[in-house]
Amino acid sequence: MYALLEHPAISNIDGKVSQKVASKGRYQRFSDFGHYGVRLDCAGMDPHENSNSRTENVTTSPATLFTPEVDAFRQGIDEALDGYTQLDQDCPDHLCEAIRYVLLAPGKRLRPLLVLAANQLCGGQIEDAMPSACAVEMIHNYSLIHDDLPAMDDDELRRGRPTCHIKFDEATAILAGDALIPLAFETIIANTNPATVAAACVGELAVASGPSQLVGGQADDLRLQFATPDLASLEKIHRRKTGALLTVSLRLGGLTAGASGAQLDCLSRYGQHLGLAFQIVDDLLDLHGDPEEMGKNTGKDAEAGKQTYPAVIGEEASRQRANEMIEQAIAAIEMFGDAAAPLRALANFVINRTH
Amino acid sequence: MYALLEHPAISNIDGKVSQKVASKGRYQRFSDFGHYGVRLDCAGMDPHENSNSRTENVTTSPATLFTPEVDAFRQGIDEALDGYTQLDQDCPDHLCEAIRYVLLAPGKRLRPLLVLAANQLCGGQIEDAMPSACAVEMIHNYSLIHDDLPAMDDDELRRGRPTCHIKFDEATAILAGDALIPLAFETIIANTNPATVAAACVGELAVASGPSQLVGGQADDLRLQFATPDLASLEKIHRRKTGALLTVSLRLGGLTAGASGAQLDCLSRYGQHLGLAFQIVDDLLDLHGDPEEMGKNTGKDAEAGKQTYPAVIGEEASRQRANEMIEQAIAAIEMFGDAAAPLRALANFVINRTH
Repeated sequence: MYALLEHPAISNIDGKVSQKVASKGRYQRFSDFGHYGVRLDCAGMDPHENSNSRTENVTTSPATLFTPEVDAFRQGIDEALDGYTQLDQDCPDHLCEAIRYVLLAPGKRLRPLLVLAANQLCGGQIEDAMPSACAVEMIHNYSLIHDDLPAMDDDELRRGRPTCHIKFDEATAILAGDALIPLAFETIIANTNPATVAAACVGELAVASGPSQLVGGQADDLRLQFATPDLASLEKIHRRKTGALLTVSLRLGGLTAGASGAQLDCLSRYGQHLGLAFQIVDDLLDLHGDPEEMGKNTGKDAEAGKQTYPAVIGEEASRQRANEMIEQAIAAIEMFGDAAAPLRALANFVINRTH
Repeated sequence: MYALLEHPAISNIDGKVSQKVASKGRYQRFSDFGHYGVRLDCAGMDPHENSNSRTENVTTSPATLFTPEVDAFRQGIDEALDGYTQLDQDCPDHLCEAIRYVLLAPGKRLRPLLVLAANQLCGGQIEDAMPSACAVEMIHNYSLIHDDLPAMDDDELRRGRPTCHIKFDEATAILAGDALIPLAFETIIANTNPATVAAACVGELAVASGPSQLVGGQADDLRLQFATPDLASLEKIHRRKTGALLTVSLRLGGLTAGASGAQLDCLSRYGQHLGLAFQIVDDLLDLHGDPEEMGKNTGKDAEAGKQTYPAVIGEEASRQRANEMIEQAIAAIEMFGDAAAPLRALANFVINRTH
């Protein structure tokens, strides 16, 4: 049910793992490897507990993505991102430094985790999904860099550290974001086989990060500041600004696993609902979250006159709508049965997260 | 030797052409179609002259890319760009308007013309090269939008019109640039067959527009303002900032025509030399060009303390180096013989251009 981590970049998580998995690309059931296995179940299990003793799928979990199991996947993602940003000497040092400053900062890695989880769910191999997982994270990070710019949201703090244009300068921040976009597509093309799958992944990621999705959502989000509150406009913004990238993460996981059209449809519906829930919780955290835990300033939305769920429909209705979205997300992946436990746990994280 | 324009987007250049070419994708020699044919020879021929009377390849030409023949290709490119930016209703109107304001402004279209010329030279079909030609133009235009931003080169005039952030606002300009990058890759993926060719084109364009090429060149160009003049640093900047995109234009033309490795190597060498010549002429025009004809303010480089060829090696040596580069560019495509006349004419345009 769970793939062992076999990607070259993450084979050193546990020395014993790489000894056990001699042939690159072999797909093994988790149970075949006992406690050497690393699984993506997002459960808040006791790190001292022996994995062998856990035979049931976990459908609920505390609001954390920082269990030892998920940490292992996250470490694999971080190591792959590190590898993909070892740029040659034609990249100026300060540009490379700015890219890596943002991209390698400790983060939840929610989007790449969704890619890997969807890939496993559809019977794929982690190593096939890792380039797309990293590409999505690159696109996400470019959007953070540019959104934080003075001409956009004008934020000085992100993940507990100065934003890119504060740490470096505005021109470097613009260029670091600009560089991450083609780097994302190059990462997929250079590391994904066959070419038909690489092309499909690039095509879907390009649409999701293009003028009608990610960029369009941000453009409307800026433009509709101080406009009359309106739920339909708000959801249209977040379906594009947040939802598109979460949804395409799941689809890339499926595509790299050779998923069927029906499987991809389920993953899309899960992603769309998850995306709206994620944004509602984001808005609530901006009102009540702990700035220290979140690593960024809160209360910015109201200050900037942004449309938020609490402002448009009230806090209680926002919480209710987030719960409904999560229920619908979980319902969308019912066809996968018990195997979808990791995605259910990720949904639980999204609704219960505190940062 | 010359393909007739058969791309759907450009089939209406001459009504008689589309009647003659019934089957999409047919490749015809220019002579088969007499004066209905459109050829890319970049020559400054008399518009009233009958094409049938011209049987020789043109190896020299006046410094213009605005002959009726090239205008027809340019019109085809413009119509294809227009088609690819008919964005759906999820793209905010002001964002779509900003993208089209920049992308559809009258321009030389040098890069897409290089794609089409290289494609024809390698026996390809215009319709196969048009998506890549438009993608390169999108990347070029995104780089212009972002380079013009206040935090970068801070330019207010481009192609005789207010730059994007002046016409709209800074956030919209950043987002229009951001949107053009994925749109370029989507344009290739959605319109290029087979997937192996689409993937190869995306991979090469992604590298050329990434942190070690286009973006790296711009980053160093900004960083090295007021530095001690140094020819090696200067050429390293322009090899990446200008040369990479010109070179990849030629390679995409070749790739979409199924060019051999040897052909692609020749095209690359031509592009690298053409790129340096182009930049030297750009620097000279910034010193002595007519702002009205160029459509932008001149004298900006010296004001900004930028390293330029005239500043580093003097004006006369700059002219000499540009001529050497053009000679080497033309020498690089010797293997193609007479068929390379359009690329020789394009090289002549680059060295003799006044805007």
